[in-house]
Amino acid sequence: MSAVDALAARVGRALRARAARLAIAESCTGGLVGTRVTGVPGSSRYLLGGVVAYHNTAKIALLRVPRGMLRRFGAVSAPVAAAMARGARRVFKAEIAVAVTGVAGPGGGSAGKPVGLVYVAVCGFGRSRCRSALFGGSRQRVRDQAADLALIMLLEHLEEVEIP
Amino acid sequence: MSAVDALAARVGRALRARAARLAIAESCTGGLVGTRVTGVPGSSRYLLGGVVAYHNTAKIALLRVPRGMLRRFGAVSAPVAAAMARGARRVFKAEIAVAVTGVAGPGGGSAGKPVGLVYVAVCGFGRSRCRSALFGGSRQRVRDQAADLALIMLLEHLEEVEIP
Repeated sequence: MSAVDALAARVGRALRARAARLAIAESCTGGLVGTRVTGVPGSSRYLLGGVVAYHNTAKIALLRVPRGMLRRFGAVSAPVAAAMARGARRVFKAEIAVAVTGVAGPGGGSAGKPVGLVYVAVCGFGRSRCRSALFGGSRQRVRDQAADLALIMLLEHLEEVEIP
Repeated sequence: MSAVDALAARVGRALRARAARLAIAESCTGGLVGTRVTGVPGSSRYLLGGVVAYHNTAKIALLRVPRGMLRRFGAVSAPVAAAMARGARRVFKAEIAVAVTGVAGPGGGSAGKPVGLVYVAVCGFGRSRCRSALFGGSRQRVRDQAADLALIMLLEHLEEVEIP
């Protein structure tokens, strides 16, 4: 099993120990977080589903991210990452949700939001967390690192929740 | 560029030539089709988004697959694959949509629906197509081959649509 699969398997064990079901919202990773989570056999026991909200209309219609928030902060921002996670949790009726938004490159970067900038948000169990990172490397490397961060933050979040 | 990326890039060129925007609905592939499509730089020009409908409640709530259809035919069936594609196309307001449902294994198989059984459906431009396949190999191999089939069927569908 590769290091990536081991991380997804750890997330799965942490979810099962807490009887928590997961929802995922992804933008720049385009389905990679879902692919990793569902690479683990038996993941249907804890993954409800995910939304790949690539276009802003999908963020608004499916994840109910406020249009004004997208206009004010842009799709790659902490408020939008947090809103995507909240939206996914609500839409799938999940105990916990993770969201990823960022600039995977090679195009689409700007001075304020360079290629490699990623926001990850997690919410559930009455808490939320959001973190930004600036990853280097190719489009694929940025996406891989963003998916890693999403899984790591899910683990962190779950480890703060007591096992019943 | 790997063979997989080349296929996703061909799909991207075919979509752009026809000014068609894509929506994706995935079950057993868990986000892999989206990951491949969005691995191509500039894919935000034609991908609207996707739904990873892992749990049946997600197929019903997000893709509007009729509950009775799921009960009668099961989640891994041609009618449900077709309904997932129709649902994704409608939810994202896309010109074309692809859906994948199947048994990735290693568990979850039965005599009638063995591990490796996959249905892929495509709809758009007034036509629809659906195909089943029985793939061998590991969970990862089944998922990889299912995603390949989804991209190949998208290409076939698009190639029947005249370039304006």
